[in-house]
Amino acid sequence: MQKAVINPWEVKGEVDYNKIVKEFGVERISDKLLARIKKHTKTLHPMLKRKIFFAHRDMKWLLDEYEKGNKFFLYTGCGPSGPIHLGHLQVWYFTKWLQDVFDCELWFQFTDDEKFLIKNKSFEEIQEWMYENMLDVIAVGFNPKKTHFLIDTKHADLIYPQAIKVAKKITFSMVKSSFGLNDSNNIGLIFFTSVQAVPAFLPSIIKNKKTPCLIPHAIDQDPHFRLTRDILPKLGYYKPASIQCSFLPPLTGNQGKMSSSQAIKAILSTDSPEKVKQKINKYAFSGGKATIDEHRKKGGDPDVDVSFQYLKYMFEENDQALQEIYNDYKSGKLLTGELKQLTIIKINEFLRQHQEKRKKAKQQLDKFIYKN
Amino acid sequence: MQKAVINPWEVKGEVDYNKIVKEFGVERISDKLLARIKKHTKTLHPMLKRKIFFAHRDMKWLLDEYEKGNKFFLYTGCGPSGPIHLGHLQVWYFTKWLQDVFDCELWFQFTDDEKFLIKNKSFEEIQEWMYENMLDVIAVGFNPKKTHFLIDTKHADLIYPQAIKVAKKITFSMVKSSFGLNDSNNIGLIFFTSVQAVPAFLPSIIKNKKTPCLIPHAIDQDPHFRLTRDILPKLGYYKPASIQCSFLPPLTGNQGKMSSSQAIKAILSTDSPEKVKQKINKYAFSGGKATIDEHRKKGGDPDVDVSFQYLKYMFEENDQALQEIYNDYKSGKLLTGELKQLTIIKINEFLRQHQEKRKKAKQQLDKFIYKN
Repeated sequence: MQKAVINPWEVKGEVDYNKIVKEFGVERISDKLLARIKKHTKTLHPMLKRKIFFAHRDMKWLLDEYEKGNKFFLYTGCGPSGPIHLGHLQVWYFTKWLQDVFDCELWFQFTDDEKFLIKNKSFEEIQEWMYENMLDVIAVGFNPKKTHFLIDTKHADLIYPQAIKVAKKITFSMVKSSFGLNDSNNIGLIFFTSVQAVPAFLPSIIKNKKTPCLIPHAIDQDPHFRLTRDILPKLGYYKPASIQCSFLPPLTGNQGKMSSSQAIKAILSTDSPEKVKQKINKYAFSGGKATIDEHRKKGGDPDVDVSFQYLKYMFEENDQALQEIYNDYKSGKLLTGELKQLTIIKINEFLRQHQEKRKKAKQQLDKFIYKN
Repeated sequence: MQKAVINPWEVKGEVDYNKIVKEFGVERISDKLLARIKKHTKTLHPMLKRKIFFAHRDMKWLLDEYEKGNKFFLYTGCGPSGPIHLGHLQVWYFTKWLQDVFDCELWFQFTDDEKFLIKNKSFEEIQEWMYENMLDVIAVGFNPKKTHFLIDTKHADLIYPQAIKVAKKITFSMVKSSFGLNDSNNIGLIFFTSVQAVPAFLPSIIKNKKTPCLIPHAIDQDPHFRLTRDILPKLGYYKPASIQCSFLPPLTGNQGKMSSSQAIKAILSTDSPEKVKQKINKYAFSGGKATIDEHRKKGGDPDVDVSFQYLKYMFEENDQALQEIYNDYKSGKLLTGELKQLTIIKINEFLRQHQEKRKKAKQQLDKFIYKN
């Protein structure tokens, strides 16, 4: 088995979430916490019910504040260096749900600086990807009146003066142990974590009022926010609360995460129905048996089957229907080809709607970019 | 003897300029180079004639370009963390002369980020000092039509996107060996050298034309510009040329440099005539003998006498008059008290004019701050 590596710039190997919970020091989302959330939201998003968003920091405190009338804002983001895939959309559609049910502001950071600093790509290439990525974010359907895009380079006049206040409290030793950076990394990347901290308190500055913050994110970004949480109280702000999801698997199976730098293992937001069909049929790791006969007899393994995972993560919102698919695949009643066909239809219906909204996103861009 | 330390954040001990020339790899300013400069400037500034500006990089190339009609711009700056003293003014008045005789643009950087990151001062304190420092810079008399103040935090939208292009090419190892930084330094300071590089090529971007740059500066800033010179050709810009001066000594003698963090050893731009008189009389290290009799008999040592150094560096522009003072002090004809009196008068006349211009500087501030 490949040794697992998890940091903001690399996820590989089989991820042991129990180990992560322990090592990162996050808290598992309990049924009690879900019940408390449900009091406010009426229904629970499937990613919560299914504990795909499985861990958190300070959600109880956040709800305490919320119940006292101290509303929070959301902060999430995108590192623009390639096409958007289902793994991005997983977090963002969940974030949209949070925005809708809690009726809150969303600050959305585009870390074009980070991606330029770590990728072998020009500044211009990154800017082009950022434009493309913004269309996807808008297509998710965030409320344009309550959503503010912060672009690290474009809004540097706002961000940099705050980032240095964070940076003053972080030594290179701290960055080394948090991210595994070393002396041969470039000094831009070494500085970057202070930039990623800023949206967690910038709204408090703009509103001139200490405001709680909730960061929905995939677990690999946690090292940034652990540092952020250490520093912010020293600057007079709240520690941000956070809620973490597990990784949507790449087509090739339960190792690493879906990633745009390995596009062949990913389903992209712009993939055509034919492309999706081809990718799922050709690449989606199957939990089925070698022959139909054997499958009918012994049944398949939905827990490693990528198509089933996609249904569970994003595309079959009905719990009963999902359970039936699980049972049927496990019993051998449902064949791999049939499961794939079902998944293809679901993904394509989702992408059809997403792509339709994406086409109209260009005209909305200006409404989303934050104006000082 | 105190071991000499020279880097952008610390100068202490007796400075051996021969050793610096060798270690830093700068070139001594030759009489031939001075003659070539004089062809264009008609007269030579005393700081050049006297080789107080004693070293350079690529001045020959700069003059080649100039003679081909490819004009250069000037770039210098100020780290705002305390009051302005004569050591700052030394560089800036020389820079004004360069602006006048070569009729060129000046980009003046205020590194408020750097000073915030290295000093035990709040962001607000640094901003207040920056405002005060700007009044001094304006009082020097730079041409408002050709001078642009760049403030690292205020103009971060211009500077940061360029700084990351520099940063991508600098590893922490390079910063360690250039500045002696280590793992316990904060990540803002580690990043900072890429910010200081930007004004050396930003005008080329704004004008959309590769433009030569000349940086007049005190020799302690050289490590920044050595790195800058390594990186800029990789980004498609010229290496900046530079011209370096030796340090105006503190009142206490030829060790270290005049510094605003040791204000008692410095003469400040805002000092009253009484204050100057008191500081020179009380603190200015003297090359005189213990008694008047001994002084008359054996003579003094003008080369270690701080008052004489001040006359030589900045306040006695007439070479013949300076030589006479030198001879008279060395022979014993001129007493320490008389030399001090002479120096006090000269400094106070200089400061009277500077302070008068400083009073009127507030109204001009807006003309100097760069508008995107």
